Amino acid sequence: MPSDSADEFEVIRALFAPHARAAGARALADDAAVIEAGGPLVVTTDAIVEGVHFMPDDPIATVAMKALRVNVSDLIGKGAQPGAALLTLIWPRSRPAREIQAFADAFTGDLAFFGMNLLGGDTASTDGPLTVSVTAFGAPLGERTPSRADAQVGDDVWLIGGEIGSAWLGHQLRSGAVKLEEIRRGRDEAAARAEAEAMAGQIPDYLILPGEQLDTEAAWLMSTYLAPFVRPECAAFVARFAHASMDVSDGLVADAMKLAAASGVALRIEASAIPFSIPAERWAFSGGDFRKLVTGGDDYVVLFTASPERRGEIEAAEGAGALRLSRIGRVEAGQGVELVDRQGHPIPIPDPGFVHKLGR
Amino acid sequence: MPSDSADEFEVIRALFAPHARAAGARALADDAAVIEAGGPLVVTTDAIVEGVHFMPDDPIATVAMKALRVNVSDLIGKGAQPGAALLTLIWPRSRPAREIQAFADAFTGDLAFFGMNLLGGDTASTDGPLTVSVTAFGAPLGERTPSRADAQVGDDVWLIGGEIGSAWLGHQLRSGAVKLEEIRRGRDEAAARAEAEAMAGQIPDYLILPGEQLDTEAAWLMSTYLAPFVRPECAAFVARFAHASMDVSDGLVADAMKLAAASGVALRIEASAIPFSIPAERWAFSGGDFRKLVTGGDDYVVLFTASPERRGEIEAAEGAGALRLSRIGRVEAGQGVELVDRQGHPIPIPDPGFVHKLGR
Repeated sequence: MPSDSADEFEVIRALFAPHARAAGARALADDAAVIEAGGPLVVTTDAIVEGVHFMPDDPIATVAMKALRVNVSDLIGKGAQPGAALLTLIWPRSRPAREIQAFADAFTGDLAFFGMNLLGGDTASTDGPLTVSVTAFGAPLGERTPSRADAQVGDDVWLIGGEIGSAWLGHQLRSGAVKLEEIRRGRDEAAARAEAEAMAGQIPDYLILPGEQLDTEAAWLMSTYLAPFVRPECAAFVARFAHASMDVSDGLVADAMKLAAASGVALRIEASAIPFSIPAERWAFSGGDFRKLVTGGDDYVVLFTASPERRGEIEAAEGAGALRLSRIGRVEAGQGVELVDRQGHPIPIPDPGFVHKLGR
Repeated sequence: MPSDSADEFEVIRALFAPHARAAGARALADDAAVIEAGGPLVVTTDAIVEGVHFMPDDPIATVAMKALRVNVSDLIGKGAQPGAALLTLIWPRSRPAREIQAFADAFTGDLAFFGMNLLGGDTASTDGPLTVSVTAFGAPLGERTPSRADAQVGDDVWLIGGEIGSAWLGHQLRSGAVKLEEIRRGRDEAAARAEAEAMAGQIPDYLILPGEQLDTEAAWLMSTYLAPFVRPECAAFVARFAHASMDVSDGLVADAMKLAAASGVALRIEASAIPFSIPAERWAFSGGDFRKLVTGGDDYVVLFTASPERRGEIEAAEGAGALRLSRIGRVEAGQGVELVDRQGHPIPIPDPGFVHKLGR
């Protein structure tokens, strides 16, 4: 029973090789790559599995983008500039081979967008679900690489890079668990229709719900679920200002709990300061349970803590506000995460996040 | 739908953290690791999939070892000292959770054996097959890292690190496609029985075929299939002597063809010089098709080319012969691989190796 790694990678080498220009990548034609590292490298690996991290009917292009971006998100959360990636593609025998081209186009397009090189990889066939494992490398932008464990009592707690809950809500819309009218309640329908008409042709078909006209808000929410909109510009903030830092992927509350536990501190988060999208707020204020937004996951934004003395610098650095910078709370002595309302009253969170279990 | 990466890795963090002592590994409690690289790093990634690279009833301990060793083999083939690894474990929901402990014990035991650190990883659940993806890092022992493309006309062709065909034959024995009596023909049964008695208790139960008494030859063949016996000492030979070099994983002929193609040369290989195990030779000389041995794969030895001027140095460097160093042929102008018998006559190889196809 031979390894089927090397030959299968040759199947897609032709698709990927034009994007493997780094000398160390050896045009993907060798068994290993060489990284010429002149200093510290940040390295991370994350896999996505069909049926777990994406659905079988998600577009293959966004699956490719998600596989890379969840790793880029980890690099950003550590204040590193994305540099290179390895790709392992476990392809189901039942999935059409022609989708590999679309996967490769999307993956290499995203690599180019982030200025990254493909160093190499592996492929195999499976009778199980499509599985994409990526290892990503980045160069730290700062002198230190902040960990989860570096929060200090008195720090501000910040989010940067996007909205909380949008991806979760987009997934609910796509799966039909949340109906379109639930995010439409109370909005200006004429303005929404005009916006949709102006955007017609620019929104991919897979973002239009069956039996519905184009809805730009729904399209935005679903697109953040399908392929998170990660912002490498945030890495500079992390490198310059962060004590502790991590990306938010498993739900804001669950990830804040991890940061608090690793740092040996408590995080007090003001619910009203959390950045939600307009449709998510509308949904939460008209009957939706906002706690789902802060526990749903797939946000891929950065959670960091920084000295309050740097508050002015941090706000000035964001400038026009394109990075959705939000100061959402503070680090206190103690443990755990407390979510509070405008009056400072605790908001109970029955299920702080995804509970995981391996095997039976 | 949240990512389930971080929390699940916490499930096994307790099992792996004692083995993640490198400062950059951050005790596996962070989203990324930091590698302090002072120079070039060799990096490789290989995944193994249940039903493709290993069988569902293979022991979970050898699955863990194979996952690491196929990557270590790539590093050795590039002349690099194994240094560190990332582990991505995609665990079937249907597989008992208690096997995770055995997996972790075997994986960390092998890491320690090779002097490697675990830098981090990812885990997820799947409804599909167990899938283990490893990324491994090594430090080049030489000034250059030989690629497949560096063979020169006139070079000797060498194998080092083990036998060809033993893993294939072991898999055939385990699956029942080859019967035990086929490797026993003509051997000294009294000596074999005495050896088996002397080894009793040292051979794991899973290496004893159903309904058979312990057979040390069969156990050896099966063990090389279950977890390849890779030899980091070979990396020094590659670093010191190799022009072109790669590990042999997909079958000797198929991998030699890749090296020939990448280098733009032909490889002439003498069948009688190929290192087979004693039972594999006995099987081939008593009715087995020896061409299966050179195309079967899973050998995980090193194929390299070197100047004939260094022949004496290379042979002297091996010393007592523990690394199974074999000079098997030479590099010629032309293309492809020619396998020849003792008289120099070509031996046709109908199927040079595993044919791969992704998707339907």
